[in-house]
Formats: sequence, C-alpha cells, structure tokens
Amino acid sequence: MIKIGIIGYGYWGPNLLRNFFSVNGCSVIKVCDLRKKRLELAKKQFPSVGITLQAGEIINNDEIEAVVIATPVSSHYSLARRCLLADKHVLVEKPMAKSSREASALISLARKKEKILMVDYTFLYSLAVRKIKKLIDRNELGKIQYFDSTRINLGLFQSDINVLWDLAPHDISMLCHLIHENPRSIQATGISHTVNKLENIAYLTLKYKSGIIAHISCSWSSPVKIRMTLIGGDKKIIRYDDLEPTEKIKIYDTGYNIRSEEKKRKLLVSYRVGDIYIPKIDNQEPLKEMAEDFIKSIKSHNEPIANCKIGLKVVKILEIAQRSLKSKSKEIPYQ
Amino acid sequence: MIKIGIIGYGYWGPNLLRNFFSVNGCSVIKVCDLRKKRLELAKKQFPSVGITLQAGEIINNDEIEAVVIATPVSSHYSLARRCLLADKHVLVEKPMAKSSREASALISLARKKEKILMVDYTFLYSLAVRKIKKLIDRNELGKIQYFDSTRINLGLFQSDINVLWDLAPHDISMLCHLIHENPRSIQATGISHTVNKLENIAYLTLKYKSGIIAHISCSWSSPVKIRMTLIGGDKKIIRYDDLEPTEKIKIYDTGYNIRSEEKKRKLLVSYRVGDIYIPKIDNQEPLKEMAEDFIKSIKSHNEPIANCKIGLKVVKILEIAQRSLKSKSKEIPYQ
Amino acid sequence: MIKIGIIGYGYWGPNLLRNFFSVNGCSVIKVCDLRKKRLELAKKQFPSVGITLQAGEIINNDEIEAVVIATPVSSHYSLARRCLLADKHVLVEKPMAKSSREASALISLARKKEKILMVDYTFLYSLAVRKIKKLIDRNELGKIQYFDSTRINLGLFQSDINVLWDLAPHDISMLCHLIHENPRSIQATGISHTVNKLENIAYLTLKYKSGIIAHISCSWSSPVKIRMTLIGGDKKIIRYDDLEPTEKIKIYDTGYNIRSEEKKRKLLVSYRVGDIYIPKIDNQEPLKEMAEDFIKSIKSHNEPIANCKIGLKVVKILEIAQRSLKSKSKEIPYQ
Amino acid sequence: MIKIGIIGYGYWGPNLLRNFFSVNGCSVIKVCDLRKKRLELAKKQFPSVGITLQAGEIINNDEIEAVVIATPVSSHYSLARRCLLADKHVLVEKPMAKSSREASALISLARKKEKILMVDYTFLYSLAVRKIKKLIDRNELGKIQYFDSTRINLGLFQSDINVLWDLAPHDISMLCHLIHENPRSIQATGISHTVNKLENIAYLTLKYKSGIIAHISCSWSSPVKIRMTLIGGDKKIIRYDDLEPTEKIKIYDTGYNIRSEEKKRKLLVSYRVGDIYIPKIDNQEPLKEMAEDFIKSIKSHNEPIANCKIGLKVVKILEIAQRSLKSKSKEIPYQ
Repeated sequence: MIKIGIIGYGYWGPNLLRNFFSVNGCSVIKVCDLRKKRLELAKKQFPSVGITLQAGEIINNDEIEAVVIATPVSSHYSLARRCLLADKHVLVEKPMAKSSREASALISLARKKEKILMVDYTFLYSLAVRKIKKLIDRNELGKIQYFDSTRINLGLFQSDINVLWDLAPHDISMLCHLIHENPRSIQATGISHTVNKLENIAYLTLKYKSGIIAHISCSWSSPVKIRMTLIGGDKKIIRYDDLEPTEKIKIYDTGYNIRSEEKKRKLLVSYRVGDIYIPKIDNQEPLKEMAEDFIKSIKSHNEPIANCKIGLKVVKILEIAQRSLKSKSKEIPYQ
Repeated sequence: MIKIGIIGYGYWGPNLLRNFFSVNGCSVIKVCDLRKKRLELAKKQFPSVGITLQAGEIINNDEIEAVVIATPVSSHYSLARRCLLADKHVLVEKPMAKSSREASALISLARKKEKILMVDYTFLYSLAVRKIKKLIDRNELGKIQYFDSTRINLGLFQSDINVLWDLAPHDISMLCHLIHENPRSIQATGISHTVNKLENIAYLTLKYKSGIIAHISCSWSSPVKIRMTLIGGDKKIIRYDDLEPTEKIKIYDTGYNIRSEEKKRKLLVSYRVGDIYIPKIDNQEPLKEMAEDFIKSIKSHNEPIANCKIGLKVVKILEIAQRSLKSKSKEIPYQ
Repeated sequence: MIKIGIIGYGYWGPNLLRNFFSVNGCSVIKVCDLRKKRLELAKKQFPSVGITLQAGEIINNDEIEAVVIATPVSSHYSLARRCLLADKHVLVEKPMAKSSREASALISLARKKEKILMVDYTFLYSLAVRKIKKLIDRNELGKIQYFDSTRINLGLFQSDINVLWDLAPHDISMLCHLIHENPRSIQATGISHTVNKLENIAYLTLKYKSGIIAHISCSWSSPVKIRMTLIGGDKKIIRYDDLEPTEKIKIYDTGYNIRSEEKKRKLLVSYRVGDIYIPKIDNQEPLKEMAEDFIKSIKSHNEPIANCKIGLKVVKILEIAQRSLKSKSKEIPYQ
Repeated sequence: MIKIGIIGYGYWGPNLLRNFFSVNGCSVIKVCDLRKKRLELAKKQFPSVGITLQAGEIINNDEIEAVVIATPVSSHYSLARRCLLADKHVLVEKPMAKSSREASALISLARKKEKILMVDYTFLYSLAVRKIKKLIDRNELGKIQYFDSTRINLGLFQSDINVLWDLAPHDISMLCHLIHENPRSIQATGISHTVNKLENIAYLTLKYKSGIIAHISCSWSSPVKIRMTLIGGDKKIIRYDDLEPTEKIKIYDTGYNIRSEEKKRKLLVSYRVGDIYIPKIDNQEPLKEMAEDFIKSIKSHNEPIANCKIGLKVVKILEIAQRSLKSKSKEIPYQ
C-alpha cells in the first residue's frame, strides 16, 4: 500500500483526492493547503484523511512514499525539489515548472534519486487520445501533414500567465505524445485586451522537418466553446471534437491517392472525398487512469505515459513561443 | 439600357451571365472566351447573346458601355486597362490584379477616365455580411477586439496561386469592408505539401493600432468544410457561419461589463455569459445584388460597395503576407 | 427522339422542363398552362419550346409520345385518362390521384393500352434512398423492426389537402419502395388549428405482420425544419437526415447480439453501443434520374422504379389514414 | 433540523443521499436497503449515516420526520402507506404508484394525516422547465397549440414495465405542470420486439378541448439519443433540447400574425419566419432544488411543485394509454 500526500487543495485538488481514493494499492493519508477552509472541505468529504497547513508535515513524513503537487506553477519547482530530496516520488500539476531550466533540474534530480517524476497531463489518458495514438502508431493516417487545434472559450482571465500557458499545454502535450519528432521552429502571435498585457488571444505555430505544420489557436474571449483538433495524414484525417458526447473521433478517408495521379493539373474536390468512420469511444474518467499510471510506475519503475520528458518539452516550447511573441512573431528554431 | 460585354466564360461566367440577364436596365450583348465549347454553352443557354473568340470585339464595340472581366488573374490588368482606355466601365473578378502596382495603375486610369472600376467581391452583398456591417456601424458590438476566420475544406489545389490568394480574399475583403482602419502589421505562416511549393495550408494575422487582431486560417486539406468567423467586440460577439442554412448569424452578449469591475482578480466564466439572439436573414442571391450595384454605380456615378479601393487593399495585404511567408513569418508593417 | 409535352407549369413545372431538356433521347416540344404568364416564363427560358393554353393541343398532338402532368391533384385522373386513351405514355405528379379508385382505373387503362404510367416520386431516385435500398436488400440491417420519420417545418397551409396528403407521400413511397410487405393496419391522429378543419399536424402509424412499426410525424407548424428517418434492423440502424449536406446517412451498429444473450435480465445500455459508419453519398439531382428512368422505361417497356403500383399503394394508405382520423384514431386493417 | 430516512439505495439512492446531505435544515440519519453491499457503499461515502436492512427501523423511528422512498414501483404503495400511518412526510420516486387507485388512496391518507406527499419529478425543477413555465404563464407563446416530445435512445429494456411507463412520465409530468387543463382523450400505439410483449417503441397522443395536441414518442431502440420537445403557441414556439449543453431553449417567433391575414389563401412559408432568441440558462442540479422543495414544504405546510396531484394525473394518463394500446389504439376519453 503506497501512502500518498497531496500538497495543494484548490480547484483541481478534490478531483485528485477523489480519484486517488478509488485507485487500488495506494491511500491518501494527508492533504496540505494554506487555507483552513479548503482543508475543512477535504475533511468533510473524506473524514479519514489527515490535514495540515504545513507542506513540511507531508515532505518529512517517512510513511509517505509519493507526493502529488497541485499548487500554483510558481511553487512547483521548490516543492518538487524538496520532495525528491526527501526521497518521494512526485506527481506535479501541469505545466511542470515555470522554466525549462527548472524542469531540467528536477529531471536530473529525479534520475539521481531514482524516483518517478510525472506531470499530470490527464488528457493523454483519455480514451479518445489513446485511440488517436493507436491509429497513428499503426500508420493508418499515412504520412502526417498537419495538426490544427482550436481551444477557445469565454475563459478565466488568469492574472499570472497568458492564454498560451493556460490552454496550449493540452495541445502541446498531445502533440509531443503523438508525433515522434521535435519541432524545427516555433512561432507565436497574439494580443492582450487587458491592462496587465497578458495575451488573451494567441496563435502558436510549430513546423517540423518532415513537413508537418502544427497550429494551435487559443482564446479566452470566444463566446463559443470549441475544442477541436484536426490531424491530417495523406491517407486519413482525424477530427477530434472533445465536446461531442458520442462522436468524439471521426476518421475521414482523404482520397489522396486519387489526387496524386492528377498532381500536375488542377483538382476540384467536393465537400467530402471518402467515407467517414466513427469508432465507439467508451466514457471513462482519464484522471483515474492517470492516477493508476502513477502508482503502477512507482511499483514497476517504468516510465509513465505522462512522463517528465514530455513535461520538459512542453515548457521548452512555451518558452520559445514567449520569445517569438516578443520578437515580432518571427519563427525561432527549437534547439 | 446599358449594354454589357463579358470576357471570360469559365467557372464563374455562367453565373455572371445569368444574373446580369435578370437585372433591369442592362443587357448582355456579347460574351467572349478563347474556348469555342464554352461559347456554344453560352449560346445554348441564352440564344439571344452574341459570342466571339476575340476580346477586341467587345473592347472596340462602341455599343458596349461596360465590360465584365472573368478571366484568370494574370490577364486582369491588361484587359481592364484596354477596357478603360476604350472608355468602358469595368467590373473585374477578384483578386483585382496580381500586384498592388497593377491595381494602383488601374485605379489611376479609371479616375482619369471617370469610369467605374469595381471588383466582384460578391460576398459583401450577402445579407449576412450586410447585417454584420449594420450591427458594427451602429456600435452594437462595442469596441471591436478581434476577427477570427476559418475557411477550410478539401479544395482545389490551384496550380498558380497558394491557398491564401485563393481563399483569404473573401475574409480580407470582409475585413476591409467592416473595419474602418488600416492594419498596422501583417504576418503569415504556412506549409506546402506539394511539389510546386505553393502553400496548401496557411495562417494570416493582421494587427491594428486600436488593438484589433485578425486571424484567418486557410486550408485545402481539411476533410471538414468550415466557413466560420467570430467578430468580437467588448459588448457583443458575432458568430457568422456561412454554411448554416437558417442560423448564419448568432449574436452573443459577452457580459464584459460584469468583468471589467473585477478586472484585478481572476474571473471564472462559464460556457456562456449572456443571451443569444439569432436574427432572421432572408435567402437572396448576392451575385444579383452585386450586378445591380454595378449598373446603379454607372448610372449614378457613385462608388459601388465593392469598390476598387477595397480591391487594392486586399491585393496589398496579400502581397505583404507573401513577403512574411518568405521571411520566417515575421510581422511586416503595412505602410 | 421521344417527343414530350408538359401539362401544368406551376411551382414544379420549370424543374421538370429544365431536367427533361437535359436528358438524352427526348425533347420537350410543348408546354401547356392555363396562365399566360407562366407560359411566357417558359418561353423566355426555353425559346425553342412551344406553348399553349389548351391541354388538347398536347393530348391530340400525334408527334407527342409522352405527357408529363404537373397540375393540381384533382385533375390528375381526367388528364391522365385522356392521355392514355390518346396512346401517350404518362408521368403524373404525386399523389397519383385523389382516390384509390381513380388510381386503379388508370392502372387498368395503362395496362390495356400497353403504356408506361409512372408517378413522380423523385425522392426514390435520390442517391441516399438508393443507398438505403441497397443496404436493406443485402440484409445488412438484419430483420427490420421500425421506420420512424419526422417531416416537419413551417409550411404551406394547403387549402385543399391536409398535412398528411401533403407531406406523408414522401415517406409512404419510401416505405413501399423499401419494405416488401403490405401493412396490416393503419392508424392516424391529428389536429387542425385552422377554420377549414384540415389537419396541420398529424401522426400516421402503420403496423406489419412481421413486427415492423412505421410512424410518420407531419407538421406545418414547426419552427424547425426536420427531415429525419430512422430505419431500425436488429443488426444495424440507419439514420437518414435529408437536410445534412455531407452526412445524410449514418449507419449504427446496434450491438443487439450482445443483448440477446442477456435477454432475461435488465440491460443498461450507454449512449451508443457500436461504431458508426457514414458512407459517401454523391450530390446529384434526383429529378434528372427520374426523368431518365421515364424515358428508359418507354424505350425498354420495363417498369420504372417509381411505378404506378407504388403510386396506388400510397393513395390507398392515405385513404385509410383519412378514415382512421375520422374514427377516433383507431387502427383500420389494410385489406 | 428535520431528520430523514431513505428506503431503497439502488441506482438513484446515492444521488438522493448526496443531495439531501447538502440541503440546509435537514439531515439523513438512516438508509435502508435489502442488499448489504449497497449499504456498505452508503457507509463508505457517508460514514455518519446509519444503515439497516429493515424498513421498519426507519418507519418506526420516532426521530425521523420524513421518509424518501426509492424502491421499485411495486412497493411504493405499501411503503408510503406505512410511512404516512406512522405520521411521516413522504417523498416517493416516480411513478407514484402502479395504479391510480393506489395513488388516490395515498393522497387521501396524506390529507387525513396532514402530511406532505410528494413525487420526485426532478425534471420540473430544472431551470429549463422553470423558464418554459414562466414563458407560458406570462402568455409569451400565445394560445398553446401543440406539445411534441421525442424521448428515444438505446435503452434499458425494463423487464416489468413498457417504454411508456419508463420514459413518458418525464413528458407527462411536464405537460401536467405546464398546461392547466385536463386532456379530453388519450390514445397510444406501439410495438414489442421482445418475448415478454412489453412495448419497446410507443407513441402517446393526448387531445385537449382547447385544441392542444400533445404527442410523445418513446423508444428504447434508437441508436441516437434524442430529448427534444417543441411547444407551439400561436405567437411563439419553444424548442427545448435537453441534451444541448448551452442552447437548451430556443424561442422562435412564428410570424403567425402575418399568416392570419392571409388565412383564406395558401401561404408559402420559408425555413424560418422570425427571429430566434436563446436565453441563458444556468447549470444547476435540479435534484437539489427538488430536495429543498420537499424540506420547505414540510416546514411551510405548502404544496411542493412536484405535488401528489401531478403524481396521480401521470399514473391516470398512463393507465388510459395502456387501455388504448390494448384496444386497437383507439382514443379513450379522460374522465
């Protein structure tokens, strides 16, 4: 039975607590938050759990083998570092840290200490993303050509990070998970309509040596909520709409083979070229799968799906995007 | 009765012919094309119309007061120039010319000759765009903040122009028509998946001094056809979906007034903030309205809605976008 | 070259004229209508066609081999009868006649005269219905269990027929075409909100010996236009949405095989059981196919798809439905 | 503090327990179920609650003022009767009882004992239904003409009741709540595709003296889940789609005033006549509102919204529908 402590019981904390409670082979024994009210809430919902205002009481507790960190991003590095130094396995909320330097340092430390360091990219555990991963790995799409994601809604205007750092990590982590290639260049543009100058609308473009283009459109200012990703290969194209209750993934035949023969002349294509296939995707809570993968990784010493390398890569891409935003939106090589 | 000649009877020609036939106060007396078969088709459908293989027979025909040019873009300049020199009013297909230099030269000539020079931005005559124009001009949206357009489908891979020159003119003309301000900078990025290196996926971003950002996403490689534009003001936001048969325009209350009071702290906003209103938009053929505006302008000596200044501005924006595409996607000032 | 006359040039007439013009192997030589204005319109669009105010000039014209009757339903019988007596092939608009007695008499006469008698059920020629027919005939759906159709909109309140006679023929003809079995009983209910007592909302239910139930919901009073049909088999279920531009037909796996094993106990089924498949359906004008089938039938002496037996059956079903409406909605056997 | 006992902890029980826990002014002190496993589950989630296998321990507990009965419908009558005799207030799951005789008897007993007897029509507490109620009561729709509901999905084939008793109560309770008039006649038709002869597809029609027609279409055999209700008045029409996350209620102008002037002649109406308005409906758990209404009614001695008269009426309508199903679907007067 792996004993777990949770540091941070804000918006996401209750979901983590509830899910770790339902995973076999572990038990949450203590929750920490700086706000007494939040702790009372945890106690009310889960009377068996211990509560504390001091992170140290979790970090220095010898019973506890693994710590879940769900605090604001600015504290991720110092808390995760302390936990690793105290020989705990660590699961940290996304994004992993506020810079790639911090993220790299944590990775080195975890390696030295031989501990699991994982980032909560819940998204990668959804059955829809798993299905997409399978289709790509089996080469059903053919050569990947583009990834185009729209993630917009009337959103929480964050006071410390812009819309890219808030919304794009979902798509970037998916991209890193699905595409086995580093981007060649990164470019971003955006606008702020608030006094704090943090972008509330932004567009991120990644280019790859193999010819893939990835474009991510983020906004907190859209009256319509959209979560739509197109992943185009030269054989098939996937449309992934995360808000669709029953048709999350649609697979379109492109009919590109027809086109290649006619390469030299114009080609008028109708609305659709081929058939569409909609696989059944079961409903299941990805957060529970993520929690299970953390426990499994601790036991097996294998890397989890949402591993720290993806965590680092996402932070790196966001950093370069930030530099592009400040450099007249120009493309910056991903070194 | 204004007598009209049409040069070019390809894909769009029959629509122009049919619509000018139905407009009062004008009559199409001659159609020219280089392909005999196309002319036979015109004759079959409209037995009263004259046909010719020689553009000169239209340009030098003293009876003809106005000429409609529906040929490939490379010939727009020379044909329109000849027509203006021969004292004809000219309606030219979009885009107006293949460079802003050409477009400017035509405008100067038209001014000197005191002739109408109009570009067929049919789109601007649709009742949906007219409704949007009215809403913006009455300040119902409040301060405009963004314009975000997606125009993607499995499309005709053009052999002479990239996807921006093919699809973006619709959105750029709408932008020039709706926003009474020149952009400050233009930036574009894209990719080509074909041997001819013409982009089949591209993204265009325009920034304005007043804080507006405009983003246009174009693709010939999407299995889903989307024609969706969001126009966001600080009071209301319009969602314009041109493929919707009955709900083309949706107007969303943003509830931004509530937000401004809470500017300093975070704000969690739900799916929707306010009510939605869907005005009834009648179905009507915009091409006929465009044809009528051409005839009306000739008679009244007033500028048409789809005037040559918009035509020039669209070409200029496309030219700068092209330069950005070749300069690591960086922002280029619109001079 | 089969020469054709058209009697009746109202709402549907121009579509018939245009399509018969484009069919090879026939030519429309004369059009008749009681309104001079309509004839002038025909002449303007098709200068080569003759016009007349006298149906007799078509019926007694020896050159004419086939007549298309597109007049109000009350005149179908007498006009079709005169045409058949004059040895013409006849295509009559739907519904075939205002009673089954009339329809039967026309069938006998056509048989005696060895002429084609066809009803314009354009619908049966749509590629969507053809695809459904193929799927059913290949037994891909398994045993058919139900047919459920909704055909509602804000409609033309007809002054001579109720909503069932106006809208249901589309569904009933489809039903007769797809299901190779006569109904066992017919039942209808409805309401009139107008002074003329003609139902503007009505529901029609047909039961079959094999266990099929068919239900057709018709309304002229719905603010939403719906054209949706579910055809359920024990293996697969088709959803046919005629207003969908690109996904007219969706084929659902039912997963019934799983269920049958658990017949004896309750079964909680989620939103969807199996995969969905959306075949590509080309866009094509069914009216042209119908026109071609008429000409082909005349030449080959074979029955057309939209044959007079289906025409008679539709009228018979409507007649019985009418009796049920007047008999406290009770089920009436289809004899 | 009103003390509550819950009898029955099956599918719905946990939702009831959780919601009554969150209501102020009451506390659930004991839960009863015949299955030990279910009780352990309750205990795990709510350690403070008492558990028992004996309903008597709740019914005869003097501390308990109010009992919630969430058992199968066959036991509703006897349990509710025992609770009322023991001077408890009673909230019973829908449908209230298995016959109108039973429901009437409970109502009489509750009246004699001066206790609240309420039926859990959660639906009536949804903000969407509340909005519709307000619109109708303010006469915004004008004279109501029809109510048309579709409630279909791939469903739980119940082993004791048919699809009407399973799904229609939602719509019938809404109908009784919204329309202040008893139906004049009831008619039902349907089919069973299973060996137990319980209808899995059924259609229910109610007619009202004032000219309203209500039609409810129920199916456990549809691959598509639909929850759609149209409520048509002569001024406005509401479309209520319960599966829509953000546009549950759409209000359509009918434009009927235009029509009435032209009553005598045909009227061709386009897709839509007037504008559409989509009010914002907040998300909120109706079950909590229902629980609060129960407690409020106990304290104030006022009738709850989901009162026992609606409960009785629903059972009565279902009974008559059942008789119509067995009498060749004929209309039966509602006495």
